[in-house]
Amino acid sequence: MAPQPTLAVVGATGAVGTVLCDLLSARRNVWGEIRLLASARSVGRKVRCRGEELTVGALTPEAFDGVDVAVFDVPDEVAARWAPIAVDRGAVVVDNSAAFRMDPAVPLVVPEINPDQVDHRPKGIIANANCTTLTMIVAIAPLHREYGLRELVLASYQAVSGAGQAGVDALHRQLGKIAGDRVLGSRPGDVRQAVGDDLGPFPAPLALNVVPWAGSLADHGWSSEEMKVRNESRKILGLPDLKVSATCVRVPVVTGHSVAVHAVFATEVDAEGAREALRNAPGVILVDDPAAGEFPMPIDAVGTDPSWVGRIRRAVDDPRALDLFVTGDNLRKGAALNTAQIAELVVRPRTRS
Amino acid sequence: MAPQPTLAVVGATGAVGTVLCDLLSARRNVWGEIRLLASARSVGRKVRCRGEELTVGALTPEAFDGVDVAVFDVPDEVAARWAPIAVDRGAVVVDNSAAFRMDPAVPLVVPEINPDQVDHRPKGIIANANCTTLTMIVAIAPLHREYGLRELVLASYQAVSGAGQAGVDALHRQLGKIAGDRVLGSRPGDVRQAVGDDLGPFPAPLALNVVPWAGSLADHGWSSEEMKVRNESRKILGLPDLKVSATCVRVPVVTGHSVAVHAVFATEVDAEGAREALRNAPGVILVDDPAAGEFPMPIDAVGTDPSWVGRIRRAVDDPRALDLFVTGDNLRKGAALNTAQIAELVVRPRTRS
Repeated sequence: MAPQPTLAVVGATGAVGTVLCDLLSARRNVWGEIRLLASARSVGRKVRCRGEELTVGALTPEAFDGVDVAVFDVPDEVAARWAPIAVDRGAVVVDNSAAFRMDPAVPLVVPEINPDQVDHRPKGIIANANCTTLTMIVAIAPLHREYGLRELVLASYQAVSGAGQAGVDALHRQLGKIAGDRVLGSRPGDVRQAVGDDLGPFPAPLALNVVPWAGSLADHGWSSEEMKVRNESRKILGLPDLKVSATCVRVPVVTGHSVAVHAVFATEVDAEGAREALRNAPGVILVDDPAAGEFPMPIDAVGTDPSWVGRIRRAVDDPRALDLFVTGDNLRKGAALNTAQIAELVVRPRTRS
Repeated sequence: MAPQPTLAVVGATGAVGTVLCDLLSARRNVWGEIRLLASARSVGRKVRCRGEELTVGALTPEAFDGVDVAVFDVPDEVAARWAPIAVDRGAVVVDNSAAFRMDPAVPLVVPEINPDQVDHRPKGIIANANCTTLTMIVAIAPLHREYGLRELVLASYQAVSGAGQAGVDALHRQLGKIAGDRVLGSRPGDVRQAVGDDLGPFPAPLALNVVPWAGSLADHGWSSEEMKVRNESRKILGLPDLKVSATCVRVPVVTGHSVAVHAVFATEVDAEGAREALRNAPGVILVDDPAAGEFPMPIDAVGTDPSWVGRIRRAVDDPRALDLFVTGDNLRKGAALNTAQIAELVVRPRTRS
């Protein structure tokens, strides 16, 4: 029997890396050695993974020697620099940053949708999609197979942990400041005055607010997050002409991205048929009984693997359109889980041809 | 000179009624007597309005004697019963409930859009639109005039005060319970456990959550709120064939409804032309400079009269579509302000023909 493969986790102490270590402890154990790597300030930290206490090591070229798969949960520029180094040392890289996602030579893989793409990796790099895209796309793909997707109009409700631990800390600090204050500033409701300039990584307070902005400024007023959702959806579904409009909005939720979806198809749809397609789809849980208070919400999806989908309705004025609501854990399916799933696909046992 | 008209405010002590009294203190003073009316449990309460201390009176038929305009901020069933009584006693009713909005004999008026409708009131009743519709429609109407509206896809971010003072109280209590708690329940992030069953008027906790539900269950899985937005938009704009899909979502914001809008038009659009149309539109303030952190948000719109509109982009994949974001104070333009504006139109001086 072959020895179990070695996994390296780069960025092991970040918001996503931490969840990945938790996930590796709970999933079927396909890995031999697990090597945790991080930037200099985290080297030497102890992290529990699979019941063992592991010591975080330094990110060096040599650290990738003997590594079969290296998963990266680091900023774009760190991934852009270090992924090729890991590949040079013999590892297959699964990268959670945006650095390689739109590279035609890098597959963008969602195991429930396009698992075969894992094996087409001329650069040795496989990309993981953006958390908003991932949350929504596992629920869209089965509907596309059923009806033929033509257009998506999306509005997101994104959690602060999508901006990392700094985002979580900022929201908690802000909530601490406004707790018990029902007036909020000299102008009633003035959250800006109550919170002050303690904004963390966000352009405005998140407590008692919604902020219609995520990422950086792309062309023509679009945010980078909105363009990612468009471009990645097209690539994952293999639909280069798909029409996509997204508005990405940050909301005061710790973990759990939600997306309101208006999807237009090539053929007439019906809500019960859509529910049936989703009931049998991998990675999806159907929660669709509004009369019983059952619809997808962050407080229920947090800490779970699937995308929760509900509020499924045929558009009143368009027999080819469905409206629905999807919520998923942005740190799990939106990031760490999808990464782990891809890594497991890379090392899966194959039947010889 | 004719004596100044008498105004009755029915539901003067509710969330909207309170804001209406504030507004009447600040707006041009067109009213003689202001008579505050409410249900039995509020009778005798003192409320400041226009610098005077007024005593809340009982809702009786006689209370409408001598009243020129009666504005109603009460539940649907109370409005349905009492509005005709007020009309019988000689008052023109401006009703903020849903009881009469879709009655073909009742105009649905937004003074910036269809002020002339005020004079076509065969039942003596004028309806005020739903707060989500009102917030968004003042920004849509100028774009419709410019480009010819064909379709709206909407996702809302609705504040808890839209569910009245009980909604505000519930969110504040929940935020008090979770403040300083970074674990939240035995399953991390379990807001349900941290908040308990103190849900107020909502089907689920709002603290650190978004709830894709507002109103009651209409046909085919739609919420009553979503159907109101569709039907009222069609009626206000005079577009009986307008395609509308809305997903209405409650968010942990005290006051300020936001709407992500995807609007499809008859002709090609451009973002700068849309900005120009909105810059000159009544009741709208343009806030559209993402690089400078300027976009519409509840914490800025609260306590102000106009709808704040920004994030204006032409759809990347549809030259006839615009994406934008609108935020307004749901208690002001979304309710009390629009009511006050209609009441003022009813009693405006006319030039004789």
